[in-house]
Amino acid sequence: MSHGKFITLEGVEGVGKSTNLLYITEWLKKHNIKFIQTREPGGTPLAEQLRELLLAKRKESVDPTAELLMVFAARAQHLSQVILPALDRGDWVICDRFTDATYAYQGGGRELDRTLIEQLEQTVQKNLRPDKVLLLDLDPETGLQRAARTGDADRFESEHLVFFNRVRAAYLERAEAFPARYAIVDASQPLERVQQELGRQLERLL
Amino acid sequence: MSHGKFITLEGVEGVGKSTNLLYITEWLKKHNIKFIQTREPGGTPLAEQLRELLLAKRKESVDPTAELLMVFAARAQHLSQVILPALDRGDWVICDRFTDATYAYQGGGRELDRTLIEQLEQTVQKNLRPDKVLLLDLDPETGLQRAARTGDADRFESEHLVFFNRVRAAYLERAEAFPARYAIVDASQPLERVQQELGRQLERLL
Ligand SMILES: Nc1ncnc2c1ncn2[C@@H]1O[C@H](COP(=O)(O)OP(=O)(O)OP(=O)(O)O)[C@@H](O)[C@H]1O
Ligand SMILES: Nc1ncnc2c1ncn2[C@@H]1O[C@H](COP(=O)(O)OP(=O)(O)OP(=O)(O)O)[C@@H](O)[C@H]1O
Ligand SMILES: [Mg+2]
Ligand SMILES: [Mg+2]
Repeated sequence: MSHGKFITLEGVEGVGKSTNLLYITEWLKKHNIKFIQTREPGGTPLAEQLRELLLAKRKESVDPTAELLMVFAARAQHLSQVILPALDRGDWVICDRFTDATYAYQGGGRELDRTLIEQLEQTVQKNLRPDKVLLLDLDPETGLQRAARTGDADRFESEHLVFFNRVRAAYLERAEAFPARYAIVDASQPLERVQQELGRQLERLL
Repeated sequence: MSHGKFITLEGVEGVGKSTNLLYITEWLKKHNIKFIQTREPGGTPLAEQLRELLLAKRKESVDPTAELLMVFAARAQHLSQVILPALDRGDWVICDRFTDATYAYQGGGRELDRTLIEQLEQTVQKNLRPDKVLLLDLDPETGLQRAARTGDADRFESEHLVFFNRVRAAYLERAEAFPARYAIVDASQPLERVQQELGRQLERLL
């Protein structure tokens, strides 16, 4: 049985993940590829509840290891209930953020030990890794300006620019370490150019 | 600086953990020992929210690894915000369930790999282990009868007797593996006798 492809969209706030997800799903429909579209943290009722706990601003400071374990708890649930069954059916899975975001935010941003993240990745994912990580790369200052919401910022969006610079650097480090699995797309380009590049990357997966 | 003692109460549902916690805190007051009383999963606002997610009955089946990671996420938060600061102040900490419950419920009950639990214990607790685990041992059938509530059973209480028999066996295995740290108390005895034994165990910690 042939497995579906697993594609993840990554990058700091406001790089255009959600915007381009729409482009990708249109592309998949045009190519008659069965797919599901999902996101992390989240993707199941329990995992979405964990997302709420993760994003909520709170009076108590959140222990970085507690945060990391919540992220992987949500991922274990998402994988077992949604992602693995879809790939097993042969559907493609398009996910707005996945484990690279953990390396970037908890590893880069919070400066947690990468070895611990690797151990949890191995425990929770076994040998599953994305077939392609579409990394939208952008200067965080520009991304944060683009993402500027009218509502309140969540617990991550409330971090400072130095945090997001570490996040971006960690993303780029991952992409350099595993060049075959990553496509770095310059997200400072006009949307049309970004989507041309994404389209080229998708063609290569066929 | 001298650290406080860390005491945990363990056992299947209805063995008398909460009942005897009251006895223990009275004993501590009588001996002018500063202490905090807490519980797991829980003990901080975030950890209590994780407890709610863990106990809630739900339509989706919960991946055992996701459950395990949520338990340790709550524990990491509880340790960093509550338990470690209390022990550092020299206070004693009395906790209704702790990591032995994870070995018993997720390891014994859910039959998860013990090595994974050990790894997470090491990651989250470093060298911290309870000074004394008071294991209230009782036939689960009796315990469940004692605990029978008028309200709905939670996600764990809804498990079957074979599950709880595995939980009890896992508790006893732990106590046999680390005899110095455990006190097995026969919880089928009248409450007064149980408390006499608990009192004797506490005296030995002074
Ligand atoms: N290439 C682009 N050039 C200019 N603006 C863009 C580009 N891509 C997206 N945007 C705009 O940036 C804003 C943020 O985009 P989007 O919500 O897709 O980002 P995101 O990566 O999903 O952010 P978040 O991490 O907050 O979910 C939107 O207003 C979007 O229209
Ligand atoms: N030694 C005993 N003999 C008889 N009944 C007891 C004894 N100890 C406790 N009980 C009763 O058993 C019931 C359950 O006790 P308790 O709530 O303390 O158990 P628990 O271990 O905290 O349960 P849970 O795991 O559900 O929190 C209570 O009604 C309590 O009064
Ligand atoms: Mg988005
Ligand atoms: Mg109780």
